[in-house]
Amino acid sequence: MAEFVRLDSSTSRHTMDKSITLPPDEIFRNLENAKRFAIDIGGSLTKLAYYSTVQHKVAKVRSFDKATKEAASDKLYEISVQEEVTARLHFIKFENAYIETCLDFIKDHLVNTETKVIKATGGGAHKFKELIERKLGLKVDKEDEMTCLIKGCNFVLRNIPHEAFVYAKHADSEFRFQTTQPDIFPYLLVNIGSGVSIVKVESEDKFERIGGSSIGGGTFWGLGALLTKTKRFDELLQLASKGQHTSVDMLVKDIYGGSYGSLGLTGDLIASSFGKSATADKEFSKEDMAKSLLHMISNDIGQLACLYAKLHNLSRVYFGGFFIRGHPVTMHTITYSINFFTKGEVQALFLRHEGYLGAIGAFLKGYITYSRWRLPGSRAMYGCG
Amino acid sequence: MAEFVRLDSSTSRHTMDKSITLPPDEIFRNLENAKRFAIDIGGSLTKLAYYSTVQHKVAKVRSFDKATKEAASDKLYEISVQEEVTARLHFIKFENAYIETCLDFIKDHLVNTETKVIKATGGGAHKFKELIERKLGLKVDKEDEMTCLIKGCNFVLRNIPHEAFVYAKHADSEFRFQTTQPDIFPYLLVNIGSGVSIVKVESEDKFERIGGSSIGGGTFWGLGALLTKTKRFDELLQLASKGQHTSVDMLVKDIYGGSYGSLGLTGDLIASSFGKSATADKEFSKEDMAKSLLHMISNDIGQLACLYAKLHNLSRVYFGGFFIRGHPVTMHTITYSINFFTKGEVQALFLRHEGYLGAIGAFLKGYITYSRWRLPGSRAMYGCG
Repeated sequence: MAEFVRLDSSTSRHTMDKSITLPPDEIFRNLENAKRFAIDIGGSLTKLAYYSTVQHKVAKVRSFDKATKEAASDKLYEISVQEEVTARLHFIKFENAYIETCLDFIKDHLVNTETKVIKATGGGAHKFKELIERKLGLKVDKEDEMTCLIKGCNFVLRNIPHEAFVYAKHADSEFRFQTTQPDIFPYLLVNIGSGVSIVKVESEDKFERIGGSSIGGGTFWGLGALLTKTKRFDELLQLASKGQHTSVDMLVKDIYGGSYGSLGLTGDLIASSFGKSATADKEFSKEDMAKSLLHMISNDIGQLACLYAKLHNLSRVYFGGFFIRGHPVTMHTITYSINFFTKGEVQALFLRHEGYLGAIGAFLKGYITYSRWRLPGSRAMYGCG
Repeated sequence: MAEFVRLDSSTSRHTMDKSITLPPDEIFRNLENAKRFAIDIGGSLTKLAYYSTVQHKVAKVRSFDKATKEAASDKLYEISVQEEVTARLHFIKFENAYIETCLDFIKDHLVNTETKVIKATGGGAHKFKELIERKLGLKVDKEDEMTCLIKGCNFVLRNIPHEAFVYAKHADSEFRFQTTQPDIFPYLLVNIGSGVSIVKVESEDKFERIGGSSIGGGTFWGLGALLTKTKRFDELLQLASKGQHTSVDMLVKDIYGGSYGSLGLTGDLIASSFGKSATADKEFSKEDMAKSLLHMISNDIGQLACLYAKLHNLSRVYFGGFFIRGHPVTMHTITYSINFFTKGEVQALFLRHEGYLGAIGAFLKGYITYSRWRLPGSRAMYGCG
């Protein structure tokens, strides 16, 4: 009975809210067999990782040749059905506002758990400690947020094939997946949660939060909600994907009548985000405002990232956190911004497990060694949603 | 009859809209004697500088002693009234939306102008060239925006006493004025108009726009107008000065329950601008939103400024442009941000003529030399509003 661990994101991208509205057993898969837990509570979202076993019925085929005893019965092969158990790491995210409901649900469905503790990280690990312990009956074992974030990032970069990718909107292939490499250091991790953390990572144990910004996912969500009355993050992203930022933003050509050639500023460059809404006596569409907001935030993060990368002489920047969600406009804007400001010297890379780095890191903290995770990976073994 | 030039800002701070609503002769002072013009048209605001003469009646006192002939008349002194003409540089700003009205007004009041040209700079110099020429009957002589900006900045730094100042909210003296120095280079100029330009200045003729940002004054105005339905920039600033950003922003302590000590993040630090408005089911006050917006933008500009300063090894950063307007919250936030990110290595300096650097530079372009401006300045000679 082979046991290997499978990374499996149980909610697909763009469906965050399903954790609340869909039948929970679709989301919390195999919860009844969950063996270990790790939870990462950010400013807005809770990310849960749990490891559980799945039983499969597997057909085994045995063939015979004439020389064997069984040949007497004239059988050439025999099919038997065996049970096989595989282990998977499941990921769930939900809004912090629903944490009580989700903890209740988890408690009600836990049957065979092996553990008495839950690894917890993120800013909310302290704030929600008492609640988690009371609801789940598990002891909260807190782990440092940055340590978990980096541990998770190092792990996926080293072990998950096609984890990191370059986004190129106009290329033949939109996603250029990177191969895993043993030599991943040094790199810059820009983790975009509610706010932004910028971390320089030099080795497994040497990293430093060198910067941050308050203009992050929470700003897109918060300002977006105020501007459009749309309360759901993913709906805001959908609005943005349909909008035209040029009706809200003041472009270089709106000021200059064209480009500002001697400075290398093209006419389409945004001179002032939301600059047109200052004086215009008209209504702006939700779509256009959401798009402008997404551009503003993504550009700003891109510029900060490349300045920190240059200051610290780093050429690879990975973007993590739940702001991006594989959204093409966001990835394109960040990539464009990085290319614009560094003239190609710095590479923007995105991660398929972007939002779960902290939860993965916290989960790994539960193992003294996690050498058995370091299998030569294949996509089948380390799938992701 | 002494003639010297006086820098005089005809509109006081915080009263931009007076140029539209007040009787124009209060604003366009001595326009009938205007001799030369320079105009700087940005993305949102037009800044006009004009040089005009002012006639004063000056009492002259002559005293006698007994030995002089006049003693015969027993007069000890004689008072005569003489006319004296002084020249002043006046500054006006108005919204681009009112440019036609203002040009009409200028044309109607011009009597004794000596010039046939108007120096023009800023992005709008091209866009509004034809309009200005038609309305004023003056030929538009375009000057490069960056060149004018830097020329104006160098001029005020060298010649205007108490031009630059450090803002220290909690110090005994809120404004720490700097003395003029012949040696002003190198420095970083962060010009915050509708958007932000970041310029490294190494000498009178050597400067480079090394960066910029679309999150500037136009963003405060535009997003502010959308959020609060307040269309006036200065009203937005007034709203901001009454607001509490902590009701809208997600602070470190909102996430962690306190500070994140190991990272040096205090509990009151903003983790996510507008982070609380994402999910909260309540109305936010205009004041609180305006304050949060002002913090968000000022912090962001502060961080970008200090990153560029560090990258280019510059220790002095001047902030120009019409975003700041001597507003304490803005200056405090920018100063705080610079101190936070550079641990005091970089100094944030503000300018009393912040919004008129480009107009002053364009005006100076009208003189082959402006040595006569380089008088050992006194505040009386180079007053500013």
